Amino acid sequence: MTLDLHGPVGVLAQHLIDIESVSGNEKPLADAVEAALRKCPHLDVVRDGDAIVARTSLGRSERIAIAGHLDTVPVAANLPSRVEGDILWGRGAVDMKGGVAILLSLAAELQSPHRDVTWILYDHEEVEEAKNGLGRLARNHPELLDVDFAVLAEPTDGRIEGGCNGTLRVEAHVPGVAAHSARAWKGVNAIHDAAPILAVLADYSPATVTVDGLEYREGLNAVAIVGGRAGNIIPDRCTVAVNYRYAPSRTGDEAVAHVRDLLNRAGVEGLTIDVVDHGSACRPGLDAPLARTFVESVAATGAGEPRAKLGWTDVARFGALGIPAVNFGPGDPELAHADDERVSVAQIEQVRKGLVSWLSE
Amino acid sequence: MTLDLHGPVGVLAQHLIDIESVSGNEKPLADAVEAALRKCPHLDVVRDGDAIVARTSLGRSERIAIAGHLDTVPVAANLPSRVEGDILWGRGAVDMKGGVAILLSLAAELQSPHRDVTWILYDHEEVEEAKNGLGRLARNHPELLDVDFAVLAEPTDGRIEGGCNGTLRVEAHVPGVAAHSARAWKGVNAIHDAAPILAVLADYSPATVTVDGLEYREGLNAVAIVGGRAGNIIPDRCTVAVNYRYAPSRTGDEAVAHVRDLLNRAGVEGLTIDVVDHGSACRPGLDAPLARTFVESVAATGAGEPRAKLGWTDVARFGALGIPAVNFGPGDPELAHADDERVSVAQIEQVRKGLVSWLSE
Repeated sequence: MTLDLHGPVGVLAQHLIDIESVSGNEKPLADAVEAALRKCPHLDVVRDGDAIVARTSLGRSERIAIAGHLDTVPVAANLPSRVEGDILWGRGAVDMKGGVAILLSLAAELQSPHRDVTWILYDHEEVEEAKNGLGRLARNHPELLDVDFAVLAEPTDGRIEGGCNGTLRVEAHVPGVAAHSARAWKGVNAIHDAAPILAVLADYSPATVTVDGLEYREGLNAVAIVGGRAGNIIPDRCTVAVNYRYAPSRTGDEAVAHVRDLLNRAGVEGLTIDVVDHGSACRPGLDAPLARTFVESVAATGAGEPRAKLGWTDVARFGALGIPAVNFGPGDPELAHADDERVSVAQIEQVRKGLVSWLSE
Repeated sequence: MTLDLHGPVGVLAQHLIDIESVSGNEKPLADAVEAALRKCPHLDVVRDGDAIVARTSLGRSERIAIAGHLDTVPVAANLPSRVEGDILWGRGAVDMKGGVAILLSLAAELQSPHRDVTWILYDHEEVEEAKNGLGRLARNHPELLDVDFAVLAEPTDGRIEGGCNGTLRVEAHVPGVAAHSARAWKGVNAIHDAAPILAVLADYSPATVTVDGLEYREGLNAVAIVGGRAGNIIPDRCTVAVNYRYAPSRTGDEAVAHVRDLLNRAGVEGLTIDVVDHGSACRPGLDAPLARTFVESVAATGAGEPRAKLGWTDVARFGALGIPAVNFGPGDPELAHADDERVSVAQIEQVRKGLVSWLSE
């Protein structure tokens, strides 16, 4: 398969959609991407598994990364693609082959951007953390991620969404003592003893925190509860899973301490709290001069004012390296993973224009 | 297999234990029981499936039922039986072949009891309600259960345990609205909204109710809770299963109303409550003259003062027919179903003596 990076970006996006690349099956697409980028003499190309990194080496004072993932969630009878007027339908249209088309098209065209650019196309974003291609690049080739600012072309409907909230999941275990429910007084009911935990969660008022000029709305919620062994047994354990979505004003450790403090306030004897999942937050860094130029250039092309990213995205991998990052890409995020996934070609072109404006100004 | 009903009751008990009769496999034992009872000319024998009913027809003014089940829970390398001094080890020693041995031995011996007796040996007590042999008898042959008082020889450690508490299980469903947990304010958290339900349950003080002179200690407990769809979804449903163990002072309908009232007091909008399981309570009837003679005769043989049965047993099937009933049998109920199930032969003989005293006085 040969990709033409020099034609219309909408045509390239459609071609990318039609190369099925569900997580784990990125190789044919990665091969095509690698071959096309290696034809560009102004780029140094490195491949790691099914991730490809292509860099300019112009000696600019600043280097930025622009990244997107090649994989999609499973196909739902929505391949091959189809076009209806301006709308491109098919798996990956939103998440995120429209964005990938922009990256490849710009990587080929911009032979002399005003800042050095590290273009990153990676695998396994839609599956478990351990397989994530960007995480693997950070482990295998940390030097390739040594940049001053990063843009992830995740779908934002053509808006700039800065940084991201962190997401922490803990499990709080309330102990009890089992007994036959006909002699309940011989036991200690762990579900009853979980009542103050739920009360604390129900009473909690999540904050909205301004970071680098963007408003991050937080959330703290029980996302699961389970307890009980049988219909005639006093439950000896009740577990509440809590998800804390926190603004990048907090470090990961501070977020954990906040949730521990809150749950311990319930005063449940013997409560234990385990962290089961944690993706740190990422600052947008929009107060830095480099980021300000990005916002100014892109806003002028129709992206409007930047806003905070509330969901967790791979920008956090840059955040963990101390690199501010933003999300900026075509497609309505509400349509990502949907059976009727679709994107406007005009929006793909608009996002491309925003990046061109910034990189060429 | 031939059963000798006229020898020592301990030997008969051991023989019964050694005829494996895990629920569903009662036939060999039922065949042996039927054959042995049919040899007694003073008994009318009826068989229904693997249940056998044997009756005296002496024209007495009162008729009592004495019942026990033939099946056991699965064997746990505890067959064949073994004897150590006074102790008989093996599956069913407690639950309830010691009791069955007493029934068979007395059925054969007591040719002219002072009250007509309906001896009932039945199948499928240790499995689901729908298979229960006593329930099947009540449906197929209601006339066979038309008695004035009933004794179930379930293990009570040689004590009289009158009637039984009812057991009601309901599920309370708290509704919510699902949303991505990064945008929690778009949802309604069903687990948080369950907080007042748990608070009401934790605050509840169960009553102790005196019925026909016995003290029934109640209990009302969450026995299960479940909620949550995924670690990043605001839960749209939380279900709390509640088990109410209630004294025979309440009817089944009153027990349901009590639990509904209590849960509705939590003020949870959209709460729905379903009854999922319900075994009614049974009065001990110990204030009736017939029962008083039972208590007087049996207490004098070492059974001590009667107490309430807190667990639910098949006496409730008699209770549902308006027939007062008590539990009275050999074996420590805490050892029922245990791998080290064992019974004292002296206690089997003592319970037998109590029944003889009552039936022959």
